[in-house]
Amino acid sequence: MENTVRVTIVGIGAIGRAWTISFLRAGCEVRIWDQIESAADDAQKIIQAILPDLARNNLLNGRDPADLMRNMRSFSTLEEALDGAEYVQENTAEKVEVKQEIFSRFDQLAGSNAILVSSTSGFVPSAFTEHLGCRDRCLVAHPLNPPYLIPAVDVVPSPWTSRETLERAVAFLRLCGQIPIIMKKEDPGFITIRLQAMMYHECWRLVKSGLASPEDIDTSIREGLGLRWSFIGPFETADLNAPGGIRDFVARFGENLHDIFPTDGPIEWSGELMDQVEGYRRERLPLSQIRDRQLWRDRRLLALAAHKNAQSSLP
Amino acid sequence: MENTVRVTIVGIGAIGRAWTISFLRAGCEVRIWDQIESAADDAQKIIQAILPDLARNNLLNGRDPADLMRNMRSFSTLEEALDGAEYVQENTAEKVEVKQEIFSRFDQLAGSNAILVSSTSGFVPSAFTEHLGCRDRCLVAHPLNPPYLIPAVDVVPSPWTSRETLERAVAFLRLCGQIPIIMKKEDPGFITIRLQAMMYHECWRLVKSGLASPEDIDTSIREGLGLRWSFIGPFETADLNAPGGIRDFVARFGENLHDIFPTDGPIEWSGELMDQVEGYRRERLPLSQIRDRQLWRDRRLLALAAHKNAQSSLP
Repeated sequence: MENTVRVTIVGIGAIGRAWTISFLRAGCEVRIWDQIESAADDAQKIIQAILPDLARNNLLNGRDPADLMRNMRSFSTLEEALDGAEYVQENTAEKVEVKQEIFSRFDQLAGSNAILVSSTSGFVPSAFTEHLGCRDRCLVAHPLNPPYLIPAVDVVPSPWTSRETLERAVAFLRLCGQIPIIMKKEDPGFITIRLQAMMYHECWRLVKSGLASPEDIDTSIREGLGLRWSFIGPFETADLNAPGGIRDFVARFGENLHDIFPTDGPIEWSGELMDQVEGYRRERLPLSQIRDRQLWRDRRLLALAAHKNAQSSLP
Repeated sequence: MENTVRVTIVGIGAIGRAWTISFLRAGCEVRIWDQIESAADDAQKIIQAILPDLARNNLLNGRDPADLMRNMRSFSTLEEALDGAEYVQENTAEKVEVKQEIFSRFDQLAGSNAILVSSTSGFVPSAFTEHLGCRDRCLVAHPLNPPYLIPAVDVVPSPWTSRETLERAVAFLRLCGQIPIIMKKEDPGFITIRLQAMMYHECWRLVKSGLASPEDIDTSIREGLGLRWSFIGPFETADLNAPGGIRDFVARFGENLHDIFPTDGPIEWSGELMDQVEGYRRERLPLSQIRDRQLWRDRRLLALAAHKNAQSSLP
């Protein structure tokens, strides 16, 4: 299957770079623009360093890193970068005014066929597209970083996103190996963000209550719950934990689980509580080593993706 | 390191069998008692089938399956099974009266050196040990099943559990390759259970709100959040998601995450909502295939454990 979709990446920080790899791997022509001109050169070097590792782990669809690098070009004006683009992925700063401004420029400069997609995690698409002529072609696709190793992507349409736009975006993301999690309607806190937020709320609450240390919490996920969740979701986990499936699970354990819901609202992640949690992290990892540890994390995600692929291809 | 601890398993269902494997692998002598006499024979066959797979994946500490099987014996009376035991792991039905009764029998029958440990997920240890002479030697060690593949174990002392008991139990579990998550004081909802419960609450809530399908929820964990959580915990995840670490992460994203906390309490997992979630599961997996899928899940956990071991041994 050859894919000759022309894609524009607007903003080439960590998120834009990672999207670029997803799109290159799918065979797209990727055009890049960033308000900082040197950013594209930096990105090119980082991407060039990552692609061979993906190829070695059979995570590049059999494509050649050098070929993919030739499909990536940067432009000094947004207008040139948008020329002929069918799909635009925006990754600028997380400020609603910035999103509003860049989407207004898309409205003037992008072709009438272009789907205009924001990576934002913090704003619903209606917050920055309402007054645009192209608003029916705008939506959010929020990745977990890096999307070339983490397939799930929150896809969030605004009230005025057309059905055709949503369908085209979803089809394109699937073509790129992503798995779109489609929100039925926009709501602050997308699906993955809400699930992650509830996990955070409980982590901080447990530390504040004095019941567990921050390290215990991380361990209980990393050496416990997170193992199953890396290949079966929570509903399937529950379904497999009772002979009669999920209804039986809830009959057995539902009351207990129900009763431990905290009713006193969210707690503040600040003050001494923050000092304690940050103290745990800084003792394990000085800030000066955070970049190395991010690379280690991405290397582990890569190895896990290769492992999962090998597992799924078993009979 | 040779470990000659004599362990007694009381109740040899799925949990008891899994504990038996953990203890055998550590070199222990395991004595088994179940109120159903045939249960021990069934367990023996199941364990015999699992051990070679663990050995092939280098998950048996280099030990020989046949040797381990010789270290396992079943007894027809509880008294015999408890003879000389230093560590007793109880895995009977999840009813507080059952726990009270079996622990009363331990009080009469077990040696004065034995640590008496319950696998319960639903009861704090004080609920079934208060009136016992041996109550200072009782506590809870609640596994995620199966513990021989999932290291994290909730360790919960009662107000009267002695420090020595807690320390001996923790040291023994570590010797067996488990990672104890020690609650500072007993509280309904142990650490892993609370974290899992909050995840469930949000999963059901998202389905009820109409924002996502049950399948989308499972996918967003399995192909998204769960990937990172299989090797880094939530605090480390956040710490690595901002250049300045977790304090910087909260400064950037904390307000958004804080605002999406649900303030309307827990919802009921029943009625049409249950029909919808169960409908999703039964469409994917008929109940008649649930045992096969549980075996698949355990096979995947085994492969993941082998994968993680290989990753950690890299430089």
